[in-house]
Amino acid sequence: MPILQPIRERLLLGPGPSNAPASVLEAMSRPLLGHLDPEFLALVDRVKDGLRILFATANPMTLPLSATGSAGMEAALVNLLEPGDRIVVGVHGVFGGRMAEVARRAGAEVTTVDAKWGTALDPQAMADAIRRASPRVVAFVHAETSTGVCQPVDAIAQRAREAGALVVLDCVTSLAGRPVELDAWGIDAAYSGTQKCLSCSPGLSPVSFSERALERVKSRTHPVQSWYLDLSLLASYFAGAKRVYHHTAPISAIYGLAAGLDRVLAEGLPARFARHADAGRRLVVGLEPLGFEPLVAEADRLPMLTSVRLPARVRELGEATVRARLLDEFDIEVGGGLGPLAGEIWRIGLMGENARPEVVDRLLEALRKLLA
Amino acid sequence: MPILQPIRERLLLGPGPSNAPASVLEAMSRPLLGHLDPEFLALVDRVKDGLRILFATANPMTLPLSATGSAGMEAALVNLLEPGDRIVVGVHGVFGGRMAEVARRAGAEVTTVDAKWGTALDPQAMADAIRRASPRVVAFVHAETSTGVCQPVDAIAQRAREAGALVVLDCVTSLAGRPVELDAWGIDAAYSGTQKCLSCSPGLSPVSFSERALERVKSRTHPVQSWYLDLSLLASYFAGAKRVYHHTAPISAIYGLAAGLDRVLAEGLPARFARHADAGRRLVVGLEPLGFEPLVAEADRLPMLTSVRLPARVRELGEATVRARLLDEFDIEVGGGLGPLAGEIWRIGLMGENARPEVVDRLLEALRKLLA
Repeated sequence: MPILQPIRERLLLGPGPSNAPASVLEAMSRPLLGHLDPEFLALVDRVKDGLRILFATANPMTLPLSATGSAGMEAALVNLLEPGDRIVVGVHGVFGGRMAEVARRAGAEVTTVDAKWGTALDPQAMADAIRRASPRVVAFVHAETSTGVCQPVDAIAQRAREAGALVVLDCVTSLAGRPVELDAWGIDAAYSGTQKCLSCSPGLSPVSFSERALERVKSRTHPVQSWYLDLSLLASYFAGAKRVYHHTAPISAIYGLAAGLDRVLAEGLPARFARHADAGRRLVVGLEPLGFEPLVAEADRLPMLTSVRLPARVRELGEATVRARLLDEFDIEVGGGLGPLAGEIWRIGLMGENARPEVVDRLLEALRKLLA
Repeated sequence: MPILQPIRERLLLGPGPSNAPASVLEAMSRPLLGHLDPEFLALVDRVKDGLRILFATANPMTLPLSATGSAGMEAALVNLLEPGDRIVVGVHGVFGGRMAEVARRAGAEVTTVDAKWGTALDPQAMADAIRRASPRVVAFVHAETSTGVCQPVDAIAQRAREAGALVVLDCVTSLAGRPVELDAWGIDAAYSGTQKCLSCSPGLSPVSFSERALERVKSRTHPVQSWYLDLSLLASYFAGAKRVYHHTAPISAIYGLAAGLDRVLAEGLPARFARHADAGRRLVVGLEPLGFEPLVAEADRLPMLTSVRLPARVRELGEATVRARLLDEFDIEVGGGLGPLAGEIWRIGLMGENARPEVVDRLLEALRKLLA
């Protein structure tokens, strides 16, 4: 039996990947260029320009890291932290917890500020922790993919900067789906993924580092523990006047990202944000008669990832069974809960290409049949 | 101007990427599946089976790591090394040097055994260093992409195991191009890349870890410094009875790898190795009348990466200029030298799809015209 078998057409409404448009899939089938080919380097430069528009930043060090969003998180933290540095991490879901764990492995002294999963971080609690810890870095998650909470950024980032800390923001699920404003917010390091609201294949992590962040990296006394993620080395390939080999860039994935960026920019960010907001609202309204209740209060709710408590009918049938039937019989994927929310919620993604009314209606129709 | 522009058809005869066949490019354009979709998990299982054939190993922990070969190197070293552990690294080119650097960043005490670039490591010198250092790990490069040297593995690996060390082998350029025999050689951790003799796009690193290596990881007293590359966490997704989310696997890249493995296995490894050997010989013979001299003695020469000293005519014209003209006028990429060999040699890859007589002849014809 060949290893590669026919691939089913699924509607991907989990926490990512989302479905990629035809232009992105076609781009990845184009012939390979060498990673030092002037034409490829010019393409990488245009990709960097596009990413700067999405992140709303002028940061020269904005680039597609050659690994997934979790590696973007690790890159942000291991470049900015040295052993013994203090960091304050907001934790209101899996990804805040992961940040804390990555920071610990970088030898940092970690203070976490916890909030109930499904709620936003309390800016005052973050401010208090920042005042007490006087940390080198403050890190938190803009769009918590494990809960569907959108975290207001401004107040926390301002307090962090007033305290002289660098600010790291996880934008994995928000980028290209709702406003991300690195420069206006004063963010020093941000990372995202390609497989969420960008509707590209997973495998790259768009990252951006401010000049303050780069100065911090330059003044380190210990080398960055990861060679692969060392920003100074990455800069020699991605941003040097003469491009020097560091590792071999993932050519096809970058073609796909280029096509995805073209699609985002052709639509325009405001229209794209509005489309995500509309789709999220339509989903919540449509799920209500079926007995699904939003986990997150309306003010803190993400449009591209809706987490819902499950109705009695789904619990009777078994939530994993219903998800499996949705996949098997309707070719629709939705996500289960993580950690303490496993078995308690579903996570329904309407990301990028899938943030459309007809997609919402297809899911609702399938659920009505399954739960009848 | 759109970010994605038409892509030129290049003949990629540098140190990688090589050209991908149509089946691999087509595979990457298939619709996305979720990374926890049972159909995708079954595909990953078949990919792991295919990789075990290529690595000639029964290691259950054989998988496509979600980043390029350099991350595979880092994964091998940071999982097996703890701060203060001793390691002996053979250095006869860029990639041995990189291993030493990665090991240092993992807090290891590094002993290097150097050999002149363009020659193989002396097994006796390695044995002496192993005896003196009594290291936890011995690491070296099978196919040095910076010089074109093929390193005999058997004797060094045997000495390392006799001394109780784990053996790490860099197979980035050798895998699928000449025999790699992890189990017969007694290798504990190996890594490769997809963009060399596998003729897939860059972005994944096939890795394999022995049971001894996994025991070492289990008995660690410090957590692995990299969360992204932590083998125990990777195992929960790639090898657990129940597949648990760690990071989002690069779906399209794994489709491409699956198609590439199918092509390798349909050809058969012995035929593929013979094709690489034939192409390498044809190239050396054809380059001789043009004044290019092999850097590496015949016995130590890799077939898929030929490094050649440059004739006077190329030096007169400027070697970088000639390479640029080869690219601009003939759409052929060859690689320059690295480190002390920059400006001194070219590195010509005949990897995977490109290890064919007609490819060699196209390059020779272009060079004859350019150097006439």
